[in-house]
Amino acid sequence: MTELSPVLDRADQNLSASIDRMFDLVRIKSISTDPAFKDDCRKAAEWLVQELTTLGFEASLRDTPGHPMVVGHHAGATPDAPHVLFYGHYDVQPVDPIELWEDDPFDPKLKELPGGRKIMTGRGTSDDKGQLLTFVEACRAYKDVHGALPIRITILFEGEEESGSPSLKPFLEANAEELKADFALVCDTGMWDTDTPAIAAALRGLVGEEITVTAADRDLHSGLYGGAAANPIHILTGIIAGLRDDTGRITLEGFYDGVEETPENIKASWETLGRSAEKFLGEIGLSEPAGEKGRSVLEMTWARPTCEVNGIWGGYTGDGFKTVIAAKASAKISFRLVGTQDPDKIRDAFRAYVTSKIPADCNVEFHPHGGSPAIQLSYDSPALTKAKSALSDEWANPAVIIGMGGSIPIVGDFQKMLGMDSLLVGFGLNDDRIHSPNEKYDLKSYHKGIRSWVRIITALAK
Amino acid sequence: MTELSPVLDRADQNLSASIDRMFDLVRIKSISTDPAFKDDCRKAAEWLVQELTTLGFEASLRDTPGHPMVVGHHAGATPDAPHVLFYGHYDVQPVDPIELWEDDPFDPKLKELPGGRKIMTGRGTSDDKGQLLTFVEACRAYKDVHGALPIRITILFEGEEESGSPSLKPFLEANAEELKADFALVCDTGMWDTDTPAIAAALRGLVGEEITVTAADRDLHSGLYGGAAANPIHILTGIIAGLRDDTGRITLEGFYDGVEETPENIKASWETLGRSAEKFLGEIGLSEPAGEKGRSVLEMTWARPTCEVNGIWGGYTGDGFKTVIAAKASAKISFRLVGTQDPDKIRDAFRAYVTSKIPADCNVEFHPHGGSPAIQLSYDSPALTKAKSALSDEWANPAVIIGMGGSIPIVGDFQKMLGMDSLLVGFGLNDDRIHSPNEKYDLKSYHKGIRSWVRIITALAK
Repeated sequence: MTELSPVLDRADQNLSASIDRMFDLVRIKSISTDPAFKDDCRKAAEWLVQELTTLGFEASLRDTPGHPMVVGHHAGATPDAPHVLFYGHYDVQPVDPIELWEDDPFDPKLKELPGGRKIMTGRGTSDDKGQLLTFVEACRAYKDVHGALPIRITILFEGEEESGSPSLKPFLEANAEELKADFALVCDTGMWDTDTPAIAAALRGLVGEEITVTAADRDLHSGLYGGAAANPIHILTGIIAGLRDDTGRITLEGFYDGVEETPENIKASWETLGRSAEKFLGEIGLSEPAGEKGRSVLEMTWARPTCEVNGIWGGYTGDGFKTVIAAKASAKISFRLVGTQDPDKIRDAFRAYVTSKIPADCNVEFHPHGGSPAIQLSYDSPALTKAKSALSDEWANPAVIIGMGGSIPIVGDFQKMLGMDSLLVGFGLNDDRIHSPNEKYDLKSYHKGIRSWVRIITALAK
Repeated sequence: MTELSPVLDRADQNLSASIDRMFDLVRIKSISTDPAFKDDCRKAAEWLVQELTTLGFEASLRDTPGHPMVVGHHAGATPDAPHVLFYGHYDVQPVDPIELWEDDPFDPKLKELPGGRKIMTGRGTSDDKGQLLTFVEACRAYKDVHGALPIRITILFEGEEESGSPSLKPFLEANAEELKADFALVCDTGMWDTDTPAIAAALRGLVGEEITVTAADRDLHSGLYGGAAANPIHILTGIIAGLRDDTGRITLEGFYDGVEETPENIKASWETLGRSAEKFLGEIGLSEPAGEKGRSVLEMTWARPTCEVNGIWGGYTGDGFKTVIAAKASAKISFRLVGTQDPDKIRDAFRAYVTSKIPADCNVEFHPHGGSPAIQLSYDSPALTKAKSALSDEWANPAVIIGMGGSIPIVGDFQKMLGMDSLLVGFGLNDDRIHSPNEKYDLKSYHKGIRSWVRIITALAK
C-alpha cells in the first residue's frame, strides 16, 4: 500500500476540490492578535476538526486560555509504522493597512498572472492555511487510493502562532504523551526558489518586547512646556537609536554571548545559492544591506542576530498638526537570535538598558511578547535524508538545506518539551507577501506541495 | 458715555446668559485639523456672525480655501475714536485620546470643585472660544448700558489657528485696508496666576514639519528580512535622536543664529515670579527640567528655542505583536523659535540634516505645517500701559509683563502685513489643559475677563 504514482494521480484529480477547501478556510477571519476575531479563530479550528474527521482522523478541538488547538490521530499501516507529528497554524496576521489590498483579504481568488503563473490570493493562503492543507490534502489522496495511511500521523494545528503562542507550551506539557512522535513535520517555511525545494536546518530565535515610556501626567501644549518638560518620544527615540552602533552591531551588554561565526564551508555553500544583496534587496525596492558591515545578506538574515522595531507610536498622528507633548510613547521591539543566545538574558539586558535611559521623573513599562532560542538541526538525520530525496524527485531542481531568518518557536518547544527533532518543509515563496497586504500562494506551491507530501509520507514509510 | 461702573454691573447681571452663549458655541465641534468637521467649523463661524450682528456689528462670514473667517465692524463714539482690531479663533484642537475625558468634550458643563472653585468644561472653553467671548460679552454690556461703543472696533475671528492658519496671510493681504487698525487686541493667552493678570510681550515662533521616511516598497517580515533590509523606524529614530546633543542643545547647523541671551534685568524680574522648576514641573507630575542645562524653566520656555516631536508612528501599533518591518515611518516635528531666528532657514537646515541621514536606497518626504518668527513687543507703548493699569484695577494683583512659550503667528502677521502691534491679553490658566483631555475655563476667568475688557475698552477710549 505504498505505491506512489496512483496517489500522485489522485492528488492531481483532487486539485480543484482541494482549492475549494482551502478557500473555505481562508474565508474564516482567524486573526489571532485581535480579540475582535476570537469567534473566527474558533470557527477555523472547528472547520479543521471537521475536515480531519472526514478523513478518518480521530480529531478534536481542545480549548486553551486563548484560541483552541486542533489535535487529530490516525493509525499507520502497521503498529510499528513510523509515527510523525504534523504541525501547522490556522491563525493569520492582521490585514492592516487594508487600503493597500487589491482584493478583499478574506475573499480568496484564483488568478492567472501575465505569463501564465497562477496564484491564490488572500490572507493566510501562504501563512499558513494553504501550507497546512498541502499535508491534509496529501493524506486525503493517500486514503482515497489506499484506504489507509502508511505511517502513523498525529496532527497539531495551533491558533496563536501569529501572537506568540501563549497557550502552546502549557498544552504540550499537559499532553506530552499524546503528542510525542518519532519526529515532527512542520510546514511553515518556504522554497528556495520556484523550482528548488528547501529544508530549513537553522532558525533564528525571537525575543519580543513592548515598551511604553511615560513622562508628564497629561498631554502638554508644546508651546507652554516645550524645552522644559520631558518628551517621551525623545526618550524613546534616543533609546532605540542607542541600540545599534555605527557598524550595525547591537550594543546591549552580553548580546553576542553564544553567537558563533558561521563555519567557512557553510558560508561557501550559501555563496553558491546566488542570493546577492542586489537580487535579494532589489526584489523589495532596496539596494543597500542595512545590517552589520562586511557580511552577506544570507549571513545577516540566517546567521546573525538583529534588533528590529516593529512598531512605534506616540503623540498626535492624525491629519494636520497638533503642538502637543505626549504623556507617553510606545514601541514594539524584537530581537532575532542565533546560536545559543539566551532569550531570557537578552530580555533582561534590554530592560536594564532601557531602564538606565529613563529620566528619574519618567517611567517605563515592559510587556513581553514571546521568546524562543535559535534552533540548529542535524544535517544528516535519516528523516532529513529521505525528505530531501523525495522533494528532489518532485521538483525540477534538487532540494537544498538552508537557514531561516524567521523564528518558528514550535521547533524549539518540540525539541525541549517532547524530545523531538523537526523536519521543516514548506512551499512558500519569497514574493508571497506574508504579513503584508496582497498575500498569495502559488497554485504550483499548493499542487506540488500536496504531491511532495505524498512522496515524503511514502518515503518515510519505507 | 464712558462711565465704567454701570457697565461692570451690567456684565455681572449678564453672566448667566453669557455662560449659556459660550456653551452654545462650545457645543459646535469646530475641529479645524480634521476634514470630517468642516461643516461644524462653518457652523461656528455662522453662529459668531449671528451674535455680532445682534450686537450691532456689521458682520459677515468670508469664505477662504479653508475654513471661513468672521469679520465684524462697529463704529466708535466719535469718528476720531481709537480703532482696534480684536482677534480670536473659533476652531479647536482634536479631542483624542477621547477615553481620557471625564465628560463629553462637546457637552460643556459648569461644575463646582471641592473648595468652591467653579469651572466650565469642554474643548475650546479656554482655547479659544471662552476667551474670544470675554470680549464679545464686554461689548454687549457696553452697548446694553450706553447704546454704543466708545472706540471703533473691528473683529476678526479665524477658524484655522489650530491647523497652521493657511488662509490667514492671503486673507490679511487681500483685506489689508479693511482690517488695519491702530493696534490689535489678541485674546489667546493666559493669566500669570489666578489673581495676577498678564500681558505677553515676547512670543516664541514656530516651524512645523511632517516627515515620512520610506524604505522597502512593501511591509516586510522581520524574520525574512531583519538584519539586511533598511527599517524606516530605525532611520527616523536615529534622525530624531541626533537633533539634540547631550546638553540639550539642538544640533542643526546655524540653529542658534539670531538667538540672544536674555538681558540680566529681564531674567532677574522673572526670578521674582516664583516659578521654580519644582513648582512648574510638579504641576504636571514631573521634576527634572529636560531642556538645556543650566537655565531656568522660564528661560527654557520663554527665551530659548527648542525642538519637540509632537507625534510619531510607523509599523504595527495594534494589540499583540506583528513581526513586521514597516515600509514607512512618520513624525510630526516642531521647532520653537526666539529672537530673530529665521523660520525658512531653520526649515531648510532641518531638511538638509534629515536628507543627509537617509540611506541612498530610501526616501524622505517633507510636508510643512506652518512657520512664523518669534515676536518681541515694545514694553512701553501707551496701549500696553493703559491695559496694564486697567487689568490691575480689576484683579487682586497688579498685571505683569511676561514672555510666552507658545506661538501666536497672527501677531507676527499683523506686524508684518498690517503694520500693527498687538496687545496680548488673556485669562487662561496653566491648568486649563488646553490641547489635552478635560480642557476647562474657570468661571472667574470668564467673568472677570469680560469685566477686564470693559475696563480696557474704557481706558483705551480716554
